[in-house]
Amino acid sequence: MFSYINGTMPAWLKTAARIPVLAFADSCLRGIGQVVFMNNPFTGLMILTGIYFFSGWLGFAGTFGVAVSVLAAIILGLNRETIRAGLYGFNGVLVGLALATFSKNMWDGRVIIFILILSAISTILTEALNKIFDVWKIPSFTLPFNFVALLFLAASFYFFESTIISVAAPPLPAITDVVDNIYYLDIIFIFNAVFRGIGQLFFVNNPLSGIIIFAGILAASRIAGTFALVGSGVGMLAGVALGANSYTIYNGLWGFNTFVAAIAIGGFFYVLTWRSALLAIGCAIVVALLFGAISAFLVPWGVPALTLPFCLGTLAFVLIGKTSLVFTPVEGTMTTPEQHLQFFYAKNQ
Amino acid sequence: MFSYINGTMPAWLKTAARIPVLAFADSCLRGIGQVVFMNNPFTGLMILTGIYFFSGWLGFAGTFGVAVSVLAAIILGLNRETIRAGLYGFNGVLVGLALATFSKNMWDGRVIIFILILSAISTILTEALNKIFDVWKIPSFTLPFNFVALLFLAASFYFFESTIISVAAPPLPAITDVVDNIYYLDIIFIFNAVFRGIGQLFFVNNPLSGIIIFAGILAASRIAGTFALVGSGVGMLAGVALGANSYTIYNGLWGFNTFVAAIAIGGFFYVLTWRSALLAIGCAIVVALLFGAISAFLVPWGVPALTLPFCLGTLAFVLIGKTSLVFTPVEGTMTTPEQHLQFFYAKNQ
Amino acid sequence: MFSYINGTMPAWLKTAARIPVLAFADSCLRGIGQVVFMNNPFTGLMILTGIYFFSGWLGFAGTFGVAVSVLAAIILGLNRETIRAGLYGFNGVLVGLALATFSKNMWDGRVIIFILILSAISTILTEALNKIFDVWKIPSFTLPFNFVALLFLAASFYFFESTIISVAAPPLPAITDVVDNIYYLDIIFIFNAVFRGIGQLFFVNNPLSGIIIFAGILAASRIAGTFALVGSGVGMLAGVALGANSYTIYNGLWGFNTFVAAIAIGGFFYVLTWRSALLAIGCAIVVALLFGAISAFLVPWGVPALTLPFCLGTLAFVLIGKTSLVFTPVEGTMTTPEQHLQFFYAKNQ
Repeated sequence: MFSYINGTMPAWLKTAARIPVLAFADSCLRGIGQVVFMNNPFTGLMILTGIYFFSGWLGFAGTFGVAVSVLAAIILGLNRETIRAGLYGFNGVLVGLALATFSKNMWDGRVIIFILILSAISTILTEALNKIFDVWKIPSFTLPFNFVALLFLAASFYFFESTIISVAAPPLPAITDVVDNIYYLDIIFIFNAVFRGIGQLFFVNNPLSGIIIFAGILAASRIAGTFALVGSGVGMLAGVALGANSYTIYNGLWGFNTFVAAIAIGGFFYVLTWRSALLAIGCAIVVALLFGAISAFLVPWGVPALTLPFCLGTLAFVLIGKTSLVFTPVEGTMTTPEQHLQFFYAKNQ
Repeated sequence: MFSYINGTMPAWLKTAARIPVLAFADSCLRGIGQVVFMNNPFTGLMILTGIYFFSGWLGFAGTFGVAVSVLAAIILGLNRETIRAGLYGFNGVLVGLALATFSKNMWDGRVIIFILILSAISTILTEALNKIFDVWKIPSFTLPFNFVALLFLAASFYFFESTIISVAAPPLPAITDVVDNIYYLDIIFIFNAVFRGIGQLFFVNNPLSGIIIFAGILAASRIAGTFALVGSGVGMLAGVALGANSYTIYNGLWGFNTFVAAIAIGGFFYVLTWRSALLAIGCAIVVALLFGAISAFLVPWGVPALTLPFCLGTLAFVLIGKTSLVFTPVEGTMTTPEQHLQFFYAKNQ
Repeated sequence: MFSYINGTMPAWLKTAARIPVLAFADSCLRGIGQVVFMNNPFTGLMILTGIYFFSGWLGFAGTFGVAVSVLAAIILGLNRETIRAGLYGFNGVLVGLALATFSKNMWDGRVIIFILILSAISTILTEALNKIFDVWKIPSFTLPFNFVALLFLAASFYFFESTIISVAAPPLPAITDVVDNIYYLDIIFIFNAVFRGIGQLFFVNNPLSGIIIFAGILAASRIAGTFALVGSGVGMLAGVALGANSYTIYNGLWGFNTFVAAIAIGGFFYVLTWRSALLAIGCAIVVALLFGAISAFLVPWGVPALTLPFCLGTLAFVLIGKTSLVFTPVEGTMTTPEQHLQFFYAKNQ
C-alpha cells in the first residue's frame, strides 16, 4: 500500500489514464502537489484535505482554480504529458486560494467568475513564461500565480468599486489567530510557526492543516518532508533574527516561502549531499530576507509578497549550480529527491 | 489602383527605393502603419491624416518623432531592410505623439528637443530589445515606446521644474469630450467607444479620425480591419463588465489596447482559423483586464498605462502558440493576414 | 616600473598566483578595479586609497564587502579564472560601501553582519545573472549590487525598527559639502563636479579622492582615464541642461553613472574609433537622462538610483553594436581599450 503512494505514483498514473475523468482529477491533484514539487496525487489530496479542513470556501476556490487551469491547458492544446504531471495546475490552485482569501464575502459569485478568468490566464502565462525560461532550462515556479494575483489585488479597487476584494492594510496575509500569552520561542511557539508556515503556502492558517499537508509531502518523499520542516524552521529563526513582529512569525508568515525553497534546493534541483543540504539552508535564509525586502517593496500597492520571495531566491540558487564545481544539479526528468539520489548513485558506480 | 495599395505595397517599395528622399518618407509612413502591424505606407498616410485632422501639433510631433527615429537607425548603421519595413519608426511616432499630448503648451521648443532625443533613444532601445527578444523569436512590440515614455512622464517633474509636461491626475489620457446625455450602450455610445478606441492608440480622441485610421487599416487588410472593430468592441464590453467609468469607455480608453491585440492574434501572428479568431477575442479580454490592472499598478507614479497592456498580453498569447497542437503560428516573413492565409493553403495543398 | 602596472598586469597575476593569500588579495583588488572595468590590482589599490582617505569606516566596509564576495565565490566552487579577474568582487565592494554610507552609526556591528550576508548574496546573484545574460553574450554589470542594495534600503525600515539604516529623504546620496558662493559653471564648479563625480561611484564625495581614483584608472589605461573625464563632464552638462539642482551637480551626482558608461563604450566594449567615441558621449547623455528618470521612478521607495542608470543605459548601447554596420564590438577576452585597439589593428592588417 505505502509503496503505491510513494514517489510519483507511476502505476496509478497508468490506471487513471484509462478513464478521462479520472485522468483529469489526477492531473488536478498532481497540480496541487506540484506547489511543493510533488508530482503525486496523494500529496495533492492531503493538501486539499488540509485546506477544506480549514475552510470550505477556500477548499472550493482552490479546487475550482486548479480544475479551470488544467481545463484551459487541454483546450489550448498544450503538451499532454506536462498536463498529466500537474504542471499547468499548481498556479491555478494558488490563484483560486488567493482570491478566496482576499474576497470580502465568502461564496461571492463575482469572485468565482474572476477565479475562472484568472486561473485560465495563469495557464496562458505559465506556458508563456516556460517558453521564455526554457532558454536557461529553468522552471518559472509560481511566478505566473504571483503576476496574476498581484496585479489583480493591486487593481482590485478598480473592479466593482472595491466591493469584492479587500487587501489587508499590512502587506502580509491576514492573521486570524490572536496570541497573547505565548512564550516567545517556546515549544508551542515553534510548533505553531513551523506548521502554520507549511499551511500558509496554501493560505491556510492552522497548525493541524499544516500537519496534514506535511504528512502528504512525507508520503511522497521523506527527504522533501524533512526539508519542509527545516525550511519552515529557518524562516522562523530568520524572522526572529531580523526582529520581525512575533505575531507574524507565530502565524507562519516567515515560513511558507522558505520551506518550499528548502525542498527545491535540498534534493530536488540538486542531488542531496551535505553541501546541497547547506545550500538549501542558505537559500532559505536568502528567501527569508527577500520576504522582508519584497514585502517592503510592495508597500506602494498595499499587496502581500505572496510567493515572489521563494520564486526569485530559488531561481538564483538553481542557476548558480549550472557550472559550479561542488554541486550536482539534477538533469533530465525530475521526480523525487529519493529517486534523484538513486539515479545519481547508479550512474556513478 | 486598389490592388496597388493593398497588402505591403511591394511595387511601390521598389519605386520609392530609387529616390532616397522617397525611400525615407516611405520608411517613415510604413513605420506609422507598423503601429497597427501594417507594413503599408498608405495605412501610415491615412493614420497621419487622422492625427492632423485632430490636431496640427500632434500631427507635427508624430511626424517629427518617426523621422528622427528612422534617421537614428540609418546613422547607427542598422539593418536596411528592417528600416525600410518601418520597424524602427513605430516607436518613434508614438514617442512624439505621447510627448505632444502631455506637454503643457503646444509648440513648446523644449518639448520638441525632448522628442528629438527620446525618439532617437527609442530606436536604440528597439534594437537592444530586439536583440534580447530574438532568442524567443518574438518582437518587442511597442515596449521601447512604453519604457521611454513612461520613464519620461514619471520623471517630468524633474525637468525644468515641471513647467513643460503635465500628466493628468487620473492614470488615464485626458478626456476631451464631455458626455452628459448619452444613453449607455446605445448605438451612439458604441459608435464613439469603438472608433475613438481606434483613434486613442494615436492619442487622438475623435471618432472621425478613428474612421480615417480604420479605413487605412482596411485598405491594407480586410481581416485586420475586421479585428480592429472586434477588438475595440471587446475592450468596450470588458470595460462595461468591469463596471468602469462610462466616460472613459465612451472616450475609447478601453479599446485602443485591445484592438491592436486582436489584429495581432487574429491573422497576423496566427493563421486565421475559427480557433485563432476565438484566441484573438480571448487575448483582447486579457488585454482589457491588464489595462485596468496596469493602470492601477502605475498609480504610484501617476502615469497612464499607454500600450503596456497590449504589449504584455499579446506577447503571452504569441508565446503559447509555439508548441500548441491547435494553433498555427505564422513563420517566416510576416506580411498581411490575407497573405498568411494564402501561403498556408498553398503549402498544405 | 610603469609598464608593470599598465594594462591587466599579467606578470603580477602569475607572481601572485604562487601565494594563496596574495592571490586572494589580488582578486579583491582587481574586483575593486573592475567597478570601472579595470582588471588591474593597482587601480583597485588606488581606489581603495581614495576611499580610506575619505573615510575609514567606508574603506573598511568596502574592503570587507569585496573580501566576503570573493570568498563566497571560492566556497561556491565558481570559475577560478573569473574569480582571479575580480569579476565576483566588484558587486561586493559596492554593497559594502552602500551599506556603510546609509548606516545611521559608523562601525555598527549589525551593519557589518548585513554586509557579510548581502555581499555573499551579491556573488550568488552575480553568478545567476551571468547565467541569464550569457544568452546574449553581455555582462550583468553592477545589476547584482543594485538589486541587493535597493531591496535592502527599501526594506531597511523593516529591520530592527529602522534603527540601523537611514535613507536620506531626497532620492540622492547625502550631500556633505555646502556650496554657497561658487560661481555656476566656473572652473572650480567644473573641477568639483567632474572629480567628485568620479568619487561618487564609490560613495566618496571628495575631489581629492576623485583625483586619486582617476590616477588609478589612468595607470591602467589612458583611454579609459580620458573617457572617465569626458563622461563625468557630459553628466555635469546634462544636469545643467535639464535644470537640475546645482548642489547635486557640484557634488558629482550627475557624473558617477555617466563616467563609467563612457569608459564602457569608449574603447572597452567597442574598438575606439571616432564613431565609438561619439557613441560613448551619446551613451553618457542617455545615462544622465536615465539618472533623472530612474531617480524619479524610485521615489515611492525613497531610495537613490545607485548605478541602475549606468547598467540599463550601457546594456542598451552594448546590445546595438552586435549587428550594426558601423561599430566594431570587441570580441573574445576583454582587457584594456589600448589592447583592444592593438588586436584590432593586428587582425586587420
